[in-house]
Amino acid sequence: MSYKIGIDISGGDFAPHESFKGAVLANKELAQKIVLIGIEEEIEREAEKEKIDLENFEVIDAPEKISMDEVGAMSIRRKRKSSIAIGLNLLKERKIDAFVSCGNTAAVVSAASLILGVIEGAERPGISVLIPTAKDISLVIDVGANINPKPLHLLQYGIMASLYYSLVFNKENPTVGLLNIGEEESKGPDFMRIVHKLFSSSPLNFIGNLEAKDIFSGRCDCVVSDGFVGNVALKVSEGLAEVIGKFLIDAIRKDLLGKIGLFLVRRSMRRFKRVIDYAEYGGAPLLGVNGVVIIGHGRSSSYAIKNAVKVAIQELQRDLIGRIKERLDEICKDSRVRQILTT
Amino acid sequence: MSYKIGIDISGGDFAPHESFKGAVLANKELAQKIVLIGIEEEIEREAEKEKIDLENFEVIDAPEKISMDEVGAMSIRRKRKSSIAIGLNLLKERKIDAFVSCGNTAAVVSAASLILGVIEGAERPGISVLIPTAKDISLVIDVGANINPKPLHLLQYGIMASLYYSLVFNKENPTVGLLNIGEEESKGPDFMRIVHKLFSSSPLNFIGNLEAKDIFSGRCDCVVSDGFVGNVALKVSEGLAEVIGKFLIDAIRKDLLGKIGLFLVRRSMRRFKRVIDYAEYGGAPLLGVNGVVIIGHGRSSSYAIKNAVKVAIQELQRDLIGRIKERLDEICKDSRVRQILTT
Repeated sequence: MSYKIGIDISGGDFAPHESFKGAVLANKELAQKIVLIGIEEEIEREAEKEKIDLENFEVIDAPEKISMDEVGAMSIRRKRKSSIAIGLNLLKERKIDAFVSCGNTAAVVSAASLILGVIEGAERPGISVLIPTAKDISLVIDVGANINPKPLHLLQYGIMASLYYSLVFNKENPTVGLLNIGEEESKGPDFMRIVHKLFSSSPLNFIGNLEAKDIFSGRCDCVVSDGFVGNVALKVSEGLAEVIGKFLIDAIRKDLLGKIGLFLVRRSMRRFKRVIDYAEYGGAPLLGVNGVVIIGHGRSSSYAIKNAVKVAIQELQRDLIGRIKERLDEICKDSRVRQILTT
Repeated sequence: MSYKIGIDISGGDFAPHESFKGAVLANKELAQKIVLIGIEEEIEREAEKEKIDLENFEVIDAPEKISMDEVGAMSIRRKRKSSIAIGLNLLKERKIDAFVSCGNTAAVVSAASLILGVIEGAERPGISVLIPTAKDISLVIDVGANINPKPLHLLQYGIMASLYYSLVFNKENPTVGLLNIGEEESKGPDFMRIVHKLFSSSPLNFIGNLEAKDIFSGRCDCVVSDGFVGNVALKVSEGLAEVIGKFLIDAIRKDLLGKIGLFLVRRSMRRFKRVIDYAEYGGAPLLGVNGVVIIGHGRSSSYAIKNAVKVAIQELQRDLIGRIKERLDEICKDSRVRQILTT
């Protein structure tokens, strides 16, 4: 089955060039109908540069642009003709099946909540990212959509993440851990103790609290976190990986043997880079909103954008939204869960 | 001037062996009087093994042991004859000048608060760690002592960190940043906006909010954080550095050229490891308590323990505690700061 995927051509640090190239790549390799949403002239200019026939695409003009550093919620109210607002409205009207954007994350999150609303039964959307670990791949949710979560929000993130992971990686009952400052259930602020109780009483495959040092060791499939903490964990990792790479190259360049060695290990280093490269895993699904929305990293390459489209297709093929609705209904109405929430 | 430094021989993952060796190293290289606090028999056994004459040391028997995974606050009330409780009591009675422990962090923090109390004017102690960055060294405070901080606590962490950094690294007016999920002052929960205001109205060299990706790039000298968030940031970094090392070696080993290359770059890799090695920077000063207390990493080697003693000596030589008292008094009683706190 073929889907219509809308791509935000104006979003991202390297827009419109990389987003346009990503859209072309997705069209070619994934055989989906791609809808290009952005400033029409820019799209035409890119098509000419890349010698691409726009006949194969649908182009929707979105003359306004939300920059990467604008305040998200505000910009979305002001710029109703931005690619983000127009794309999400197309999704709401079911004129496209999914929307992929590497633009301003906060703007995408607020616009999606505002325009699409949440899935029936869901409280708040959460951004989930896939990260490479020593063992395999883990999913971390939430990394910044919701910085003042209530206990129920985190339980719902766990439910959505577990479902997503099981559907996309064909793994039954993926493990779920709660990001905390120690493994014992007594650890952390009161808030985390309530969340721990909620997870314990749910049918999720809950392994308990997870210390941050175990995120990348791959101790569990899904890591649930407060959006503020998850955002910090993700970004400090990005920054550290960059600095380590730099340190290493510097250290190696300092002596002659190191230089020769560097030449020899270069191919392996590239392979290593591929392992830690977010581009391999595409974008971050915004789970909980009533429509398939994938948020790409601001620095996404065309390759990363193509992979984000792949993630969107997986969600659609497996009817993730329908399944989330069922599962939330089932777990969140459970009497044990309700009891913890009311005490 | 020579100081008397108490070392917790029972604390740490490799106790008593590494802590004893660390004490010997500190005695030899730093020419300080070292007081060994731990189970007497164990200390004697280690001395025999290492062929060390205990004449050069003072030995204080502390027959009880707090394990690394006990609940800190509880264990300290029950085990009054633990090395941690006895060491901190010696410090309180000024029978030692500083206490270094690689034991259960939560136990050291609660015992220090309980036994020593806080410096006059200080509200809550905070754990500060030094981390290597792309530029130099940064100090992060708090990494887990206080997981429910009030805005004033964070301001005080900034004051203490700035003072510590300026005294130890001879740098006037070190820069101070606030760990948040975005740089704009409107970012983060309400709590962080109040903290931002407090810092802005203080005489600290405040550069504003700092995103987690910039911690390791070295954008500022002192990074102030909520203890929960700081703990996660630190531990995720430790975990990631470990996994990256493993990934890299695996990738390199996969082909023959890589293997030869690995042999050639080995020396450089060791140099790189030294840069990211926490052992170089010794322990984490527990700032705000009324006495010099250094908390070492649980996995500290004897070399790291010696460096932790060095950190203690620096604090003593520069009369950090006296200076903190003056500075807290000056800044926290300022009318602008008081006004923000009361509105």
